[in-house]
Amino acid sequence: MSQYSDRIRLQSLTDKITTAEEAAKLVKNGNTVGMSGFTRAGEAKKLPIALSERARQEELKITLITGASLGNDMDKLMAESGLLARRMPFQSDAGLRKAINSGEVMFIDQHLSDTAEQLRAGSLPKVDVAIIEACAITENGGIVPTTSVGNSASFAEADVVIVELNLAHPAALEGLHDIYLPAKRPGRGPIPLINGQDRIGTPYIPCDPAKIAAIVITDQEDSYSAVLPSDDETQAIADHLIAFLEKEVECGNLTPSLLPLQAGVGTIANAVMSGLLKSNFTGMTMYSEVLQDSTFELFDAGKLAAASGCSFTLSERMCHHVMANLDKYKDKLVLRPQEISNHPEIVRRIGIIGINTALEFDMYGNVNSTHVNGTHMMNGLGGSGDFTRNAHLAIFVTKSIAKGGAISSAVPMIPHVDHNEHDVDIIVTEQGLADLRGLAPRERAQVIIDNCVHPDFRPAMQDYFDRACATVGGQTPHILSEAFSWHTNMQQTGHMLGKK
Amino acid sequence: MSQYSDRIRLQSLTDKITTAEEAAKLVKNGNTVGMSGFTRAGEAKKLPIALSERARQEELKITLITGASLGNDMDKLMAESGLLARRMPFQSDAGLRKAINSGEVMFIDQHLSDTAEQLRAGSLPKVDVAIIEACAITENGGIVPTTSVGNSASFAEADVVIVELNLAHPAALEGLHDIYLPAKRPGRGPIPLINGQDRIGTPYIPCDPAKIAAIVITDQEDSYSAVLPSDDETQAIADHLIAFLEKEVECGNLTPSLLPLQAGVGTIANAVMSGLLKSNFTGMTMYSEVLQDSTFELFDAGKLAAASGCSFTLSERMCHHVMANLDKYKDKLVLRPQEISNHPEIVRRIGIIGINTALEFDMYGNVNSTHVNGTHMMNGLGGSGDFTRNAHLAIFVTKSIAKGGAISSAVPMIPHVDHNEHDVDIIVTEQGLADLRGLAPRERAQVIIDNCVHPDFRPAMQDYFDRACATVGGQTPHILSEAFSWHTNMQQTGHMLGKK
Repeated sequence: MSQYSDRIRLQSLTDKITTAEEAAKLVKNGNTVGMSGFTRAGEAKKLPIALSERARQEELKITLITGASLGNDMDKLMAESGLLARRMPFQSDAGLRKAINSGEVMFIDQHLSDTAEQLRAGSLPKVDVAIIEACAITENGGIVPTTSVGNSASFAEADVVIVELNLAHPAALEGLHDIYLPAKRPGRGPIPLINGQDRIGTPYIPCDPAKIAAIVITDQEDSYSAVLPSDDETQAIADHLIAFLEKEVECGNLTPSLLPLQAGVGTIANAVMSGLLKSNFTGMTMYSEVLQDSTFELFDAGKLAAASGCSFTLSERMCHHVMANLDKYKDKLVLRPQEISNHPEIVRRIGIIGINTALEFDMYGNVNSTHVNGTHMMNGLGGSGDFTRNAHLAIFVTKSIAKGGAISSAVPMIPHVDHNEHDVDIIVTEQGLADLRGLAPRERAQVIIDNCVHPDFRPAMQDYFDRACATVGGQTPHILSEAFSWHTNMQQTGHMLGKK
Repeated sequence: MSQYSDRIRLQSLTDKITTAEEAAKLVKNGNTVGMSGFTRAGEAKKLPIALSERARQEELKITLITGASLGNDMDKLMAESGLLARRMPFQSDAGLRKAINSGEVMFIDQHLSDTAEQLRAGSLPKVDVAIIEACAITENGGIVPTTSVGNSASFAEADVVIVELNLAHPAALEGLHDIYLPAKRPGRGPIPLINGQDRIGTPYIPCDPAKIAAIVITDQEDSYSAVLPSDDETQAIADHLIAFLEKEVECGNLTPSLLPLQAGVGTIANAVMSGLLKSNFTGMTMYSEVLQDSTFELFDAGKLAAASGCSFTLSERMCHHVMANLDKYKDKLVLRPQEISNHPEIVRRIGIIGINTALEFDMYGNVNSTHVNGTHMMNGLGGSGDFTRNAHLAIFVTKSIAKGGAISSAVPMIPHVDHNEHDVDIIVTEQGLADLRGLAPRERAQVIIDNCVHPDFRPAMQDYFDRACATVGGQTPHILSEAFSWHTNMQQTGHMLGKK
């Protein structure tokens, strides 16, 4: 009997236990590697290090596909070692970001529901080697993921699978996951999910045991999230949004349990969700990508009836609380592949209320989620497009100013469009909420200027809009020679309005 | 027995037959009116005239929602009479366009699958009066649409329904339509459509007969489409695209019947579809918004097994041919609500090959479908976003130059983004085809410059790209102060490169 017999329940696979260094040899130069990990949860812990070590010694360049961002500085390490030729579909590491923006690493910024579909369609190169963190392997070779599912189920279709069995994750995670993948086309049927908490698949990733080429034992925790506490501005944003949702209940567009909530990763969206603690809504549900601290605060307060995601991103305190109480949450909690947590079919069917963070937005309600000054990648699009395009309500939140007031999040024209005015329903800053539904662009502009723009920038934006209407006109009046002047002012003077 | 007993099969409704002038009185000032009509097919023929007449005599302003564009100059007439305060979700009329761009008519440019969903969700005002062209009313009051379904089934949920019974349409159209609408949320189930030709609803729009407040008899044909014949450039675009699809079959990504084809309205997309006549593909299918001449050319050539759309837009010759041979096509042809023909759930499930026309595109593969110079509305987004975001292959076609070579369709940066680089897979001009799948933006730029840009503009774009990489860098290098210089050159000198 192996010492891991409770975690590796297919006895024959214990022969595959090996070191990270040995397992890393399965990856060849030029390979496409699919690796678990989503918003710093459930990433492989040892193989990234072993592969980076090899890349420092020999010619080893790979295309790395993950779920989303990795924890424990894995992206930094791999970028700095020169291992990464290409990287998709999301990241949030400062070191990798530098390599991306210098053109060293080719970064493909994708809708997070789409990567698995593109692999299935042959639009991306086949995954040569999958590296998947697991908390157990079942009797039939099924891989039980840990704190994220991400794209791991799709990666497991590779011919070579390396499992990192991480003993730091409780075995009790088993049973939390629901693994379902759409079939190939043609002939694919509907995804049979009607309520967000429905279970439609298996609690493990099916995998032919013959493909499991190596098992590496690890014992390291995920990185904890570094979400900041709520402040006056995030509280104001939450208050505006809750007041709006209350009005939607009042007029009959929503019931007091609302519709399934989705919240983007980060401080502002998390604060908004925490704000719901004090609301009158009850029996709420979440159908989201990432489940943050606020999800469990809402559970513990009895406000939340069910939550579905593809990953946890928790603070240290909340992580220990959740892991110690998994049994309490298990019947109302599901982790799915990101293709399903973010799937347009489901988002549209169940009618998500999507709350995502904007980097900046323009006066017509187009949103930039990714590119600073239109050129430099911050993290990536993530699931914001998956949710926004098909949401019941597509809501974007952000503070109206940044850098001590030098930057306005509201600008005349954004230089990179992730979400256009056809998709964005609501914008909220600490200044107020703009309800853009059913409005033409010129009306959207006035509502945004009146409600969302910081007073320091409001007159300048009103002036630009008025002059654009008077001198150019059109459906979306703009003065092209001035449209980016706030951005070029910032570059030249350190203030968007050109103040020294 | 009424003289219309074969067309109005619920006898009691013959009492509702009245004049357009009388029926028009059912519309009150400030009402939201839902009117049939999609790409100049199946629009109401008399009520728009009667309403415009009233608007000239008295204060009468309405919000007009249709399927898409209207034929027989109805949009021009209504715009010029001052009837239209607000208009959605699409139009293609020069007169209305002028009123939109001057700010007189508030135009809301929407994804065509989304209008019905927004009505259902309460995000748009309730339709007060529906005006629907029909070729028959069934025994139970069901409304049989004519040459388009559009949003008519959703409009029929209004409390007041006016039917225009158009005798110019053959009664044999009955049986062609398949009316299915998603249920309200929560609790909505999957749309049970697996193959494009599946019938999942009723052949008529269900309607409580008590709501049918007036029936107006008309006898006027639809406008014919004015699609231009193929020329050397559109032929070259078709050839590039077919060669690409042949390679996709060769490598196993597609079978010789491809996947369901969608083609945007217009000369270029129609020419590309006609180009498939000479291809080796067989048993092809279409799942599209509008069915144009090319659909029936492909049927007649035995190349097409089935086609689903929400509207016909045919030339005079083809219209007469199709109407005279409806029985021949009926078992392989379906007309659906635009919410279903364009539904993200279905587009993603069946894996559409979407072919749409770009107004312009930029070096990273972002596409502008709508706004000339970033400000002036051309027609509208239409269904391009519904198909592009979820397609198996999202393809955009356009000629590389316009206005005798003064305008390049490829520009450094587009000033209005309808489809961003995260969604656009393939761009084709007469110069060649750019396969952008799996490429990072800097790689996309070089492939686009090498393959799609006209030689007269290629050196200037290469120079801009090289300088942007060298001096600014980032994920999508741009020089913001120059990004729109081609557009401002055009405005100032009549040539994008500033040539006199």
